[in-house]
Amino acid sequence: MKQLFFLISVFFSLSTFAQIDRVEPPFWWSDMHESSLQIMFYGKEIAQYEVSVSKEVVVENVLRTENANYVFVTINTKDLPAGSYAFNFSKKGAKGFSRSYELKERREASAFRKGFDASDAMYLIMPDRFANGDPDNDSSEKMQEKADRDNLGGRHGGDLQGVIDNLDYLEDLGVTTLWSTPLLEDNDKAYSYHTYAQSDVYNIDPRYGSNEDYKRLAAEMHSRDMKLVMDYVTNHWGSEHWMIKDLPTYDWIHQFPGYANSNYRMTTQYDTNRSQIDWKYCVDGWFVSSMPDLNQGNPLVLNYLTQNAIWWIEYADLDGFRVDTYSYNDKEGIAKWTKSIMDEYPNFNIVGEVWMHDQSQISYWQKDSPIGAIQSYNSNLPSVMDFTLHDAVMTVFDEENPSWDKGMIKVYENFVNDFLYADIDNILVFSGNHDTDRINHTYKGDVDKYKLAMTLVLTTRGIPQLYYGDEIGMQGNKAEKGDGDIRRDFPGGWKGDDNNAFTEAGRTATQNNYHSFTKKLLNYRKGKEVLHFGKLLQYLPENNVYVYFRYNETERVMVVINNNPEAQELDLSRFAEGLAGNISGKDVISEAPINLKNSLKIKGKSSLIVELK
Amino acid sequence: MKQLFFLISVFFSLSTFAQIDRVEPPFWWSDMHESSLQIMFYGKEIAQYEVSVSKEVVVENVLRTENANYVFVTINTKDLPAGSYAFNFSKKGAKGFSRSYELKERREASAFRKGFDASDAMYLIMPDRFANGDPDNDSSEKMQEKADRDNLGGRHGGDLQGVIDNLDYLEDLGVTTLWSTPLLEDNDKAYSYHTYAQSDVYNIDPRYGSNEDYKRLAAEMHSRDMKLVMDYVTNHWGSEHWMIKDLPTYDWIHQFPGYANSNYRMTTQYDTNRSQIDWKYCVDGWFVSSMPDLNQGNPLVLNYLTQNAIWWIEYADLDGFRVDTYSYNDKEGIAKWTKSIMDEYPNFNIVGEVWMHDQSQISYWQKDSPIGAIQSYNSNLPSVMDFTLHDAVMTVFDEENPSWDKGMIKVYENFVNDFLYADIDNILVFSGNHDTDRINHTYKGDVDKYKLAMTLVLTTRGIPQLYYGDEIGMQGNKAEKGDGDIRRDFPGGWKGDDNNAFTEAGRTATQNNYHSFTKKLLNYRKGKEVLHFGKLLQYLPENNVYVYFRYNETERVMVVINNNPEAQELDLSRFAEGLAGNISGKDVISEAPINLKNSLKIKGKSSLIVELK
Repeated sequence: MKQLFFLISVFFSLSTFAQIDRVEPPFWWSDMHESSLQIMFYGKEIAQYEVSVSKEVVVENVLRTENANYVFVTINTKDLPAGSYAFNFSKKGAKGFSRSYELKERREASAFRKGFDASDAMYLIMPDRFANGDPDNDSSEKMQEKADRDNLGGRHGGDLQGVIDNLDYLEDLGVTTLWSTPLLEDNDKAYSYHTYAQSDVYNIDPRYGSNEDYKRLAAEMHSRDMKLVMDYVTNHWGSEHWMIKDLPTYDWIHQFPGYANSNYRMTTQYDTNRSQIDWKYCVDGWFVSSMPDLNQGNPLVLNYLTQNAIWWIEYADLDGFRVDTYSYNDKEGIAKWTKSIMDEYPNFNIVGEVWMHDQSQISYWQKDSPIGAIQSYNSNLPSVMDFTLHDAVMTVFDEENPSWDKGMIKVYENFVNDFLYADIDNILVFSGNHDTDRINHTYKGDVDKYKLAMTLVLTTRGIPQLYYGDEIGMQGNKAEKGDGDIRRDFPGGWKGDDNNAFTEAGRTATQNNYHSFTKKLLNYRKGKEVLHFGKLLQYLPENNVYVYFRYNETERVMVVINNNPEAQELDLSRFAEGLAGNISGKDVISEAPINLKNSLKIKGKSSLIVELK
Repeated sequence: MKQLFFLISVFFSLSTFAQIDRVEPPFWWSDMHESSLQIMFYGKEIAQYEVSVSKEVVVENVLRTENANYVFVTINTKDLPAGSYAFNFSKKGAKGFSRSYELKERREASAFRKGFDASDAMYLIMPDRFANGDPDNDSSEKMQEKADRDNLGGRHGGDLQGVIDNLDYLEDLGVTTLWSTPLLEDNDKAYSYHTYAQSDVYNIDPRYGSNEDYKRLAAEMHSRDMKLVMDYVTNHWGSEHWMIKDLPTYDWIHQFPGYANSNYRMTTQYDTNRSQIDWKYCVDGWFVSSMPDLNQGNPLVLNYLTQNAIWWIEYADLDGFRVDTYSYNDKEGIAKWTKSIMDEYPNFNIVGEVWMHDQSQISYWQKDSPIGAIQSYNSNLPSVMDFTLHDAVMTVFDEENPSWDKGMIKVYENFVNDFLYADIDNILVFSGNHDTDRINHTYKGDVDKYKLAMTLVLTTRGIPQLYYGDEIGMQGNKAEKGDGDIRRDFPGGWKGDDNNAFTEAGRTATQNNYHSFTKKLLNYRKGKEVLHFGKLLQYLPENNVYVYFRYNETERVMVVINNNPEAQELDLSRFAEGLAGNISGKDVISEAPINLKNSLKIKGKSSLIVELK
């Protein structure tokens, strides 16, 4: 890819006499579902030129804005074969010039790519903190922030090559899908490692590698039957973004005028009693001062973001998006963006970050939500995140004296509201991510509690998502030590690391205790359709023991989570509906046979996953 | 009524030769919407008799059960004029007998009675604990439990005459609607004062008075333009109920067999992941062992309860029901019961006790709920209770260090989910009832916090409900001292009470501080349509100050609740939408003018209710 880009830029620079600095999208594809393509040309005073295109191309419109350095040319690509098309720029009294634009052939069946779903297990990494495969790119001349591994909030050098190098590890662990936090260029002076303040959304940050490397990662994953999910940011860019420094329109971003921070109160998005000003500050206020808030209400912005997203799917061969701060976006704009992508790729999947603590509020944002429907709102977003389950998971395993609302009942109560969701199988379940305390910090390194949490996350309905390093017991305290502490380097990802947790031999005994359980369960789950799409049947917890079943027409799995520190003996007659006549099974972890005739004993603070037969 | 009953019973005893001990309903009305009337005859071996009725009466069916002491005769009353109709009982080889049944004339426009609504303010009493108007009926020969005012859980002697005697007090206070906890006969040996374990649902408990007294209470209230709400119990009767002692059918009540308590997990009513056994224990299990759980799935039971409810509305001229433990009932049965009543009285109101802590779960039970609709469920219940607001009210005024989810934001957040309700004006708002800690206990007698709570309850959307005695600062600690402590006698309700809180002169200075604020605000609210049905516009709290407006096309009221112990000065420019150009107003409590041009000062821990003009 590097080479291709180099050739294209040489060609451009020769033919344009430098009038054009940027063309975005840099190329496109023929045979797309959406035939309109809006190409943005950027160059000094470019708007003064008239634009015409080879006669076989229908120009739908040419838009100019208040900034003469931009011109937006929309063509209709319907029935246009792949190839190069000339865009001619002319101006009275000046020398005209021409620009070639390429439509590529699509991959076979590209439109029908299948996104991640509940048959997958997703693994979230922060690429700067996972593995440093190429120490040569830790810093870049073009990028302000240089590597400094001693700085918890600095860049540590992890990169795409590091991920590619450790795909064996991930495959062996049993995860099937990788969600990496953003990889596009973020030229902020500091804290750029999180990469949510992007400065160029058509290029991978050189400190992670190249566009070509990203494409190679996807290909490597596909060859292992694994999937790649991009973390897409529609809500904001970084203040170092080149377009922010030369805004196409005043309203490209939200300006009050003057700076205004978001109030983060996403409930204003649907509160019928809200004041307009609170709603405006939520949606239009900036997430932080270094992240100008994009105005999806401006069709140019919306289209730019839509095409950019589709460009990445088509270019890198992606299997899904995770969309950052989904519910902070302009409601109607983000619904259109989402619909455009899903119209283009009907079997794709997109999970939105909808960080709320009420199931109706989370459901609101899922496609065809009965809650959204109350306000005739349909986000078109296929998947949301089960943050209420996360809330429970982060406290429940310390609750050893159950009461009306403490103990395993909190987990049970999460699932009673499943009927509020339009598609309960398409919900991400997790015990942590890059913005939360690490579960092994929360439970003070108690591996038994980790196993209870993993049992739940990996056997309940929905798409399980793990956070890198949890599987080896990594800890991190966001509340007291900040974000950097929950985003520490994966041990073994850097040459010279004392501890290499990527290999069994390199892991400590404690790390292997975490890892072996996770691996066993993930690999069991991989082939078990009943754990992917089976129905859930749950029982009211008694004595802090939560029992549930996953079942379909041919398979049944019984899960027992004993959150009581004491051993328990369950009278199985109560579970007749779930057992459905089965009187024996197999412990999925130990593979020992289990007798289910009368009662079942389970140790304190332990779980049993029993395949019935 | 006593006399009428006496005459009827004399007539019956003469004509029936004692074969019939009970006829229920004891009489009925002509011209009802529902023309079918099922009359239950009870007497030893009565089922052995054939039944025929005067020829102008169409008998729809005659049902016998496994218990020969019952016969259910359904007649069609369509076009039957008011009058007496003979029911003839015959049996081969035995002497026949006849029984006269009366259809009365209805009150004019009885069907169109208007129930309580948001223009009302409801006052909840426990009649045994409010005022003892007739010391002669404190105990009754017929009833097991005798009066014992020294026993916190015993009968104290309060009665209907005590309520009637104090209607002036209630009217002066500014309440418009009275909800009394149940008054029907409860012959339990102990704790009968709460009267939720009824033993005869066609008669007022003699320790409260007579049916005639209840009717008189309604008439007295109507003459003051006040409304009376009956506390109806569909879920269970007391174990002393005469029918429980001679069950018409085995399945008249839920039997497992053997005793089974409810698990109280109402969420099983809609959890799509529930196990059948948990659902069964919730709905069919008994609330407590002394309250047999009625089976609304049995059409005979359902019809008995429906007719009984309609009988009381028509007989006593009621304005509404509060239905106890609504969400523990058989879902479909209670929906039919509710619909039958609302079909009979389309403008009536019924509020159900749906004690849940999630708005979608509460909404589920309201008529035409979009949440219920997800499962094609429609309870037909017009009104539900805002228990989530209650949850917030009971903690928020002690939260003086606001955070993301502490302080006034908890109140604000309650209202963001209003869109989940089908009819947000028809929701009961309250700071306590007979089952919760008293607010003035919760806030340790801090009258400032009481005023903040009352400001909210009396000026937000919905139907405000007060609990007797809160308006004079009564305290009670349920958690530590039990139910009796939150149900203490209203001071002055008993002859010889040292403190008579029914009069200004009799109240202590502290009591008058509570009372005068409550009275002032209730009386202001009474005439203010904008506080009844006006829209709500709320602002995100800042510095623990919550500001909202109620508005309609002609009126606006601004409410400021400063939960911060420090005085605050608000920049009014933020509230332009709510102020709608108004630059002055009137403090509703002090009646002082308020300048709203630039900023507004408010003392710490205080509220301002400003009528804009």
